[in-house]
Amino acid sequence: MNYENVLQKLGDLKIDSYNNDFLLTWEKSNDEIVATVTLAELFKKLHQNGISLKVFDTGLGISIFRDQSTRTRFSFAAAVNALGLSLSELDEEKSQVAHGETVRETANMISFLAEVIGIRDDMYLGEGDSYMRDVSAAVQQGYDEGVLHQRPAIINLQSDIDHPTQAMSDLAKLKHYFGSLENLRGKKIAMSWAYSPSYGKPLSVPQGVIGLMTRFGMDVCLAYPEGYELLPEVVQLAGDNAQKYGGSFTNVNSMEEAFRDADVVYPKSWAPFNVMQQRTVLLINGDKIGLKELEQACLANNAKFKHWECNAAMMKLTKTGNALYQHCLPADISGVSCERGEVSKDVFEKYRLHTYQQASYKPFVIAAMIFLARIPEPVNAVKRIIERSHKRV
Amino acid sequence: MNYENVLQKLGDLKIDSYNNDFLLTWEKSNDEIVATVTLAELFKKLHQNGISLKVFDTGLGISIFRDQSTRTRFSFAAAVNALGLSLSELDEEKSQVAHGETVRETANMISFLAEVIGIRDDMYLGEGDSYMRDVSAAVQQGYDEGVLHQRPAIINLQSDIDHPTQAMSDLAKLKHYFGSLENLRGKKIAMSWAYSPSYGKPLSVPQGVIGLMTRFGMDVCLAYPEGYELLPEVVQLAGDNAQKYGGSFTNVNSMEEAFRDADVVYPKSWAPFNVMQQRTVLLINGDKIGLKELEQACLANNAKFKHWECNAAMMKLTKTGNALYQHCLPADISGVSCERGEVSKDVFEKYRLHTYQQASYKPFVIAAMIFLARIPEPVNAVKRIIERSHKRV
Amino acid sequence: MNYENVLQKLGDLKIDSYNNDFLLTWEKSNDEIVATVTLAELFKKLHQNGISLKVFDTGLGISIFRDQSTRTRFSFAAAVNALGLSLSELDEEKSQVAHGETVRETANMISFLAEVIGIRDDMYLGEGDSYMRDVSAAVQQGYDEGVLHQRPAIINLQSDIDHPTQAMSDLAKLKHYFGSLENLRGKKIAMSWAYSPSYGKPLSVPQGVIGLMTRFGMDVCLAYPEGYELLPEVVQLAGDNAQKYGGSFTNVNSMEEAFRDADVVYPKSWAPFNVMQQRTVLLINGDKIGLKELEQACLANNAKFKHWECNAAMMKLTKTGNALYQHCLPADISGVSCERGEVSKDVFEKYRLHTYQQASYKPFVIAAMIFLARIPEPVNAVKRIIERSHKRV
Repeated sequence: MNYENVLQKLGDLKIDSYNNDFLLTWEKSNDEIVATVTLAELFKKLHQNGISLKVFDTGLGISIFRDQSTRTRFSFAAAVNALGLSLSELDEEKSQVAHGETVRETANMISFLAEVIGIRDDMYLGEGDSYMRDVSAAVQQGYDEGVLHQRPAIINLQSDIDHPTQAMSDLAKLKHYFGSLENLRGKKIAMSWAYSPSYGKPLSVPQGVIGLMTRFGMDVCLAYPEGYELLPEVVQLAGDNAQKYGGSFTNVNSMEEAFRDADVVYPKSWAPFNVMQQRTVLLINGDKIGLKELEQACLANNAKFKHWECNAAMMKLTKTGNALYQHCLPADISGVSCERGEVSKDVFEKYRLHTYQQASYKPFVIAAMIFLARIPEPVNAVKRIIERSHKRV
Repeated sequence: MNYENVLQKLGDLKIDSYNNDFLLTWEKSNDEIVATVTLAELFKKLHQNGISLKVFDTGLGISIFRDQSTRTRFSFAAAVNALGLSLSELDEEKSQVAHGETVRETANMISFLAEVIGIRDDMYLGEGDSYMRDVSAAVQQGYDEGVLHQRPAIINLQSDIDHPTQAMSDLAKLKHYFGSLENLRGKKIAMSWAYSPSYGKPLSVPQGVIGLMTRFGMDVCLAYPEGYELLPEVVQLAGDNAQKYGGSFTNVNSMEEAFRDADVVYPKSWAPFNVMQQRTVLLINGDKIGLKELEQACLANNAKFKHWECNAAMMKLTKTGNALYQHCLPADISGVSCERGEVSKDVFEKYRLHTYQQASYKPFVIAAMIFLARIPEPVNAVKRIIERSHKRV
Repeated sequence: MNYENVLQKLGDLKIDSYNNDFLLTWEKSNDEIVATVTLAELFKKLHQNGISLKVFDTGLGISIFRDQSTRTRFSFAAAVNALGLSLSELDEEKSQVAHGETVRETANMISFLAEVIGIRDDMYLGEGDSYMRDVSAAVQQGYDEGVLHQRPAIINLQSDIDHPTQAMSDLAKLKHYFGSLENLRGKKIAMSWAYSPSYGKPLSVPQGVIGLMTRFGMDVCLAYPEGYELLPEVVQLAGDNAQKYGGSFTNVNSMEEAFRDADVVYPKSWAPFNVMQQRTVLLINGDKIGLKELEQACLANNAKFKHWECNAAMMKLTKTGNALYQHCLPADISGVSCERGEVSKDVFEKYRLHTYQQASYKPFVIAAMIFLARIPEPVNAVKRIIERSHKRV
């Protein structure tokens, strides 16, 4: 990697991320998406070369996890640390921090010395994104009123709508695999539902993928069994993107059809949109019996689609039988983590390293998001990081 | 803010805080109180100007929360981080860390590289302050015996007796609002009980306020319904202060009377002193039925005083109808966080920004407390911070 | 302490710890053991003199505690902080992180920016050490495959087999007490079982002590009531060590016999080896009734040996009645933490300071382990730390 070229490329982009959040990739301009991926790659390379990325002397990075997480949690911790911030997790009791007035208050009370707030809230359809916007409005108001000396950036660590730190890592991996973002043009990616012996998995990963990859001229094929629809507005957006950016977006009900001639496959389980809606109501009402019944109905329905498994036979259908397999991890691997799952053991093992590499971009993607949102002249600041080349150890 | 003037002012004070704890404001000399507030204001201004406050290269700041906390937890985390320390929370199981021998041992075992231990222990009357003194004696002994290379300062993050980080933030806000500490002389502050649909709120906030504000020549009026007494020794101390420092301290049983002609009102719920005593016994005995009965009796009693609400009519009684409303937050706001509470929605909203500002001093008050307790020549150290003016980002 | 001499001594040792783990002391060469102890002492002295040990600019130190811990947890936090890393604890749900494939994946996913992973896993006989090796193999593979830019060191914070951070702290204390490692030659240490009104305490401490002290020419006498055997392979190893390094290793069934003429006594409760095996099966099966029955049988058996208490009469048997009492803490002190326990109150109090000093080495032992495992040319790096003598405050 030639640092000069990267700096040049970054300098040519129109970046308007300062004091802004990163909630949905489709709220970001193409230049900002490219800047984020480019900066993430650069940070990764600098880290590999032992160069410190530290730009903050002190300051807090706050995380709010309203759902379990291991890899995103550690990716956020790593990103925050790499930039010089200290992590503080808000261990939020659902009862304590309610919506409305209290979000405004809590958001300000924790933010006096905060530079970034990372939030995962993906379980309640119609809630996660809305909660992030409440927090964002609250710290914006606090900043405008002078209560906060700086305006912490809100980073979406997975909402009900999008999972941008994942989708951007996926994009970085694809860029690296195919050589450039330009090379993604005309490549077919199969974003396919796959069978899993669990239910209630969020929609944010497939939505994030179709919302982002359609911006790079890819032929995005979304596949799922009838009834496993995604949020209509995101599907609409993917179609619009395809038209605007010169790729294609198709929607099929067959894994085979999606895999046929694909360059990339992304087989992953999710819950039907309408099930997530029912589930949200039941969760809010604390209706345990209803939840149990819903789960059983869903698992029974899932079981009709056990053949939606990414295995050797399925992979044979892809371009030269050799498409890149991608997954956000952890995958449900048949015979390993479950009896029958999203992917067969041999396929997963063949591509394991690729999935690890895919995941390895996430800390640097998050660091890039924080950097662009918090550093007023980011390209100059990156230049200084390279110039000083301060050794990390 | 003229840094030179502030340094001059600090230099004129007799500060003897090094290697000492901050447990009760009334154990600190007037000069130390003034130094703490002045330093907190300076730190706040420096932070606002993007100047780093880092004075520690490494070292731990330990927190022990024996009761829930969001804002004090984050204020402590922020203060510790701003000075360059790393936070370690002691997640104490009640069974593991008992009193007596074990406090001495645990306190030393966690403190080998610690600079400060912040403790919240406010639920058990007669316990919190005593526990903090046990920890203090333990680390003092460890330091004297050479087991500890440094003597971590104990900071009271709310005890059964005082809440000094809150009361000092309140003082900083009042100083800013009225222009100087001198201007507080002759101002009337109403520290009033207010209705809340909960019970068992600690006494430390009202006790902290009457114990501190009577030292600045204020006319402190404590108001509560009959039966909601505070700790007799703190009430005694407030009276003594008033006499010594030339203000006044009165004790009434009417919110109206307290509010009349007040410059500042601080309406806040608390549990009666004797209820807290009974509760402590029941909690120690694990008597759940007894606790439930006590709660019901208390709530029934509370309900007699629903008219102790800070609303527009009540505010009209204050000086020019325009007193400053203060609260340690979160407030029980009628129609927002509860049906009927401590303050009406319109009054709270009118003063919301003031309460946020009041809270915004806390991280810097805590940083000032740590700084004065851990830096041998604090004024010179502050001078160097200003001279180097190291940018935080 | 003459820094020059220490550097000279370190320079003479063959140190091959870079990119290696610290799992069992007996996997480390004598030179590496000596280097670790020497470096720990040096770090302790530097810290006492206010000199910063910071060698990392950024980077994560990860801890995985599969059993409760206070002092090792804080020692690890302190060590990580002293070197400039940030702590991230993996709060592992047993169900989430299983063995096999998933360990490999999780280990890599959390390690992208990690320098060290400290693990406590001591409850399941045959599991802890094996788990650490799974994690080690996983990050080694990730490093070899280029997924990880650096190879995090695995540090054993107590396994089913060894407790090296404890045993090394014990060794550092003995070195200091007797003046040198050479002076340990011919000194008798009684590693004795002692009565405790609890059951299921791990074997790692006594195993760690007999496995390490037999390497320094000590006369190690292991004592326990019949039936309280340790792992046979560790006992075998202790015997082999004694033969190889010219000390002795004896195994008796009487505390009196062990204490007779001892220079050091280390009375400590543990569970019989075969009980730990049964317990592991019951724990894995979630057999609560079986566990309760086993506990009662064990406690009944323990109760036969209440006279295995380290008290004044027992201490009289030691060399000049004045042996050094050691314990990893917390001890079960008769009349303090329990009715009848491992040690009488007067004996414990007489030696309390010594046990605190013993514990005080642990943060620096862990820092030395991390340093040697992560810094390519450690002696030069130490030299630079001394030369720069950067003040910590």
